[in-house]
Amino acid sequence: MLQIDASASEPIYMQIYKQLKSDIIQGLLPAYSKLPSKRKLSAQLSISVNTVELAYSQLISEGFIYAKPKKGYFVCQIGQLSVLSHAAPPLFQTAPKKQPPVLIDFALDGVDGCAFPYAHWRKLFRNVFDCSNDILRPSPIEGEPALKEAISAHIYMTRGVVSTPEQIVVGAGTEQLLQLLHQLLSKDCTIAMENPVYNQAYAVFKQLNRAVLFIDIDEQGIQLEPLQNIHSAAVYVTPSHQFPLGVTMPIRRRIGILNWANKSPHRYIIEDDYDSQFKYDTKPIPALKSSDATGKVIYLGSFSRSIAPCFRISYMVLPPKLIAVYQKQYQPFNCPVSKTEQLILADFIKNGNYETHLNRMRKLYRDKREFLKQQLLEAFSKDITIYGENAGQHILLKMHKNVSETELCKKAYEKGVQVYPLSPYFSGTMPKKYDAMVLLGYAPLSLEQMQKGVSLLKLAWS
Amino acid sequence: MLQIDASASEPIYMQIYKQLKSDIIQGLLPAYSKLPSKRKLSAQLSISVNTVELAYSQLISEGFIYAKPKKGYFVCQIGQLSVLSHAAPPLFQTAPKKQPPVLIDFALDGVDGCAFPYAHWRKLFRNVFDCSNDILRPSPIEGEPALKEAISAHIYMTRGVVSTPEQIVVGAGTEQLLQLLHQLLSKDCTIAMENPVYNQAYAVFKQLNRAVLFIDIDEQGIQLEPLQNIHSAAVYVTPSHQFPLGVTMPIRRRIGILNWANKSPHRYIIEDDYDSQFKYDTKPIPALKSSDATGKVIYLGSFSRSIAPCFRISYMVLPPKLIAVYQKQYQPFNCPVSKTEQLILADFIKNGNYETHLNRMRKLYRDKREFLKQQLLEAFSKDITIYGENAGQHILLKMHKNVSETELCKKAYEKGVQVYPLSPYFSGTMPKKYDAMVLLGYAPLSLEQMQKGVSLLKLAWS
Repeated sequence: MLQIDASASEPIYMQIYKQLKSDIIQGLLPAYSKLPSKRKLSAQLSISVNTVELAYSQLISEGFIYAKPKKGYFVCQIGQLSVLSHAAPPLFQTAPKKQPPVLIDFALDGVDGCAFPYAHWRKLFRNVFDCSNDILRPSPIEGEPALKEAISAHIYMTRGVVSTPEQIVVGAGTEQLLQLLHQLLSKDCTIAMENPVYNQAYAVFKQLNRAVLFIDIDEQGIQLEPLQNIHSAAVYVTPSHQFPLGVTMPIRRRIGILNWANKSPHRYIIEDDYDSQFKYDTKPIPALKSSDATGKVIYLGSFSRSIAPCFRISYMVLPPKLIAVYQKQYQPFNCPVSKTEQLILADFIKNGNYETHLNRMRKLYRDKREFLKQQLLEAFSKDITIYGENAGQHILLKMHKNVSETELCKKAYEKGVQVYPLSPYFSGTMPKKYDAMVLLGYAPLSLEQMQKGVSLLKLAWS
Repeated sequence: MLQIDASASEPIYMQIYKQLKSDIIQGLLPAYSKLPSKRKLSAQLSISVNTVELAYSQLISEGFIYAKPKKGYFVCQIGQLSVLSHAAPPLFQTAPKKQPPVLIDFALDGVDGCAFPYAHWRKLFRNVFDCSNDILRPSPIEGEPALKEAISAHIYMTRGVVSTPEQIVVGAGTEQLLQLLHQLLSKDCTIAMENPVYNQAYAVFKQLNRAVLFIDIDEQGIQLEPLQNIHSAAVYVTPSHQFPLGVTMPIRRRIGILNWANKSPHRYIIEDDYDSQFKYDTKPIPALKSSDATGKVIYLGSFSRSIAPCFRISYMVLPPKLIAVYQKQYQPFNCPVSKTEQLILADFIKNGNYETHLNRMRKLYRDKREFLKQQLLEAFSKDITIYGENAGQHILLKMHKNVSETELCKKAYEKGVQVYPLSPYFSGTMPKKYDAMVLLGYAPLSLEQMQKGVSLLKLAWS
């Protein structure tokens, strides 16, 4: 017997629908039993036929009842009911997140949050995000043509990289592009990586179960000897500013690695030019890709450090051979990057704003780096040596005391300062010469924060 | 002999740097040869020592020369020069893109570009994109907490899906989330898919070389019989509105598939609820996930159809077992979705704007659908039957004439109208009963465009 409450806020048809549904689920209305006709039920409840019609339609479309022409409405055979009990929130254990009392975090990623041209970016958004632009359509898989043109021109001007816009693939961060490369490179292609390595890049290949060969670096970067007998390989390198050690690969090693790649059609070089924009003592070192006359270098660039990591826009320049594979495999997909942000960025680059921004940031980071160096040398004088400070957004600090990396980090942490160990970047045991070294990033910190950080480090490490 | 042009716009140190570099590359300055001292060169060229210093520093940092303390500057051994010739743009063949003269495209994706709340979105952008928000930092890998909360509340209210925000993973489109699922599901887990299937989903698994088992659908959706003996499988289904046929899975089949999944810990259901917001004849059908009491359903949702495909924001609700795998594997990565757009969307949902927008769009698309149906029935009357029109953003048209799907598409195309064949969604041969059927999407088209499209179709198909 249906109960209707005409004063309830819930529409009457919903009340009927819910009661019948519940009766069917509980078996009170068994399969194949006949429901009252619409006319009969409407008379019985003193409601309109339309209201009953609405309730029955909903039950039909969900498969609880069916209509037999000229016979009326019947309950469906819906099967075992046990699993239909209303789903309770499944038991779920969140790992308790530690919230360390970090006062100063010398984080390795991030940018200066105050120096960003917010107002200008908002203006570009207003210009781009408009009804007239077809802005709601997705981008083609390889990225917006305007952005690809802007990137192609920009990397030619600033990094000496010659490319056509067709060779450029826009991706949602370097991780996504490396996943894509994993798909494009043949299964038997070994990924060789620098040891120590940028561990987010390694994490991608590890997570994909790709075999990775680690090769130690020396003072010129990755060593070439271990590569010689590998027929099919792609070598992931950071020649402008090795991560994390900060080594710049000199011309000799560059020629060596290009010669190695040229010896087999199955050899590639993956150049991750992640922070090349920031070179402080000299002009930027040209990209390895700029010396690649034969299409052996896959060039990866990103705006995470030069603009901000929140946008997740990276790109790569694919050699013609791989672009052909890519176009064949990826035709059905959409570009994972927001179209709006691609178009804003294209404008930002084309109007020269990006160049201006880079120049500003380079000066800002140079000043920060100088300040941090001074502060550290004042605090620790000859007890420390600083490495890799001529580029990028972090420094490497070596403590000349009988202390472990772990102790350095732990003691700093106890004073509320986060510095970063070097050993997680190594595959296998870290060579002894890298003992007692930690990484300090400075891009997001103000001078005051760095000053405070260093004074806390002095307390921690003395 | 160095040539200096003091009147050139290029700084003198760059002129020196370039000439020395070129001489070294060409072998005119052989390895180990000594360069003039800074003092000597500066006197010789009548320039400052600092200028020479700048040029030498750049050459040192690129590895062309080296300094020996108290001995001076020497040319490095840089190796074989052949590959160093300036990289020419590699030969690159773009596939010539056909530009068909399409006047009216009954595209299956896309949204109504005029009904979008542009001004409101711009306002949300202004609010979110601000210095004070830490907006430049990347999002945690699983997405912005504010967005995950908003989604969790929204899918409970509108789809009956019970979840905690921790179970929600935000991704850059359904494709990316399916790639991620491929990683989370064990290697021996078979992916079972509906036949016909949403082919962008299939393309993901195909491209990843995942074994896919196709199972024909009947009038209730995917058939369960072929699944019974598969121990480890994840079944990809679109129960609210099967793509492309438009079938709604009734409660009986839903119970059947849940029971199937409950029989083994290695069985999952992937519910792609891609366009459930748009149901025209009744209230929306609750999600299959809403009946999942045991954590067997992986629920996928997207804003591509309900807001716009340009944003590339999708999400999934992972069962607790998979969330644990996910948290372990993906800790090192960043979320591929723009932080700004995540926060805008979170606001849009929380403020109730999304609900309002959906209601508006539902009405708009209902009107468009009705109009298109009317136009088609007027033009073709009993020659056609229309299917799957009660939901989604496309209809399925069956032509009752002795004509093939290919001919229908080809004839339409010749008149400047794009309609879409059904057969590409099938694995293997399409059953005969689906002959002479085509898909027509209507979301992005205006009434005038649809009218014109149908009149052209009438010319084409008569």
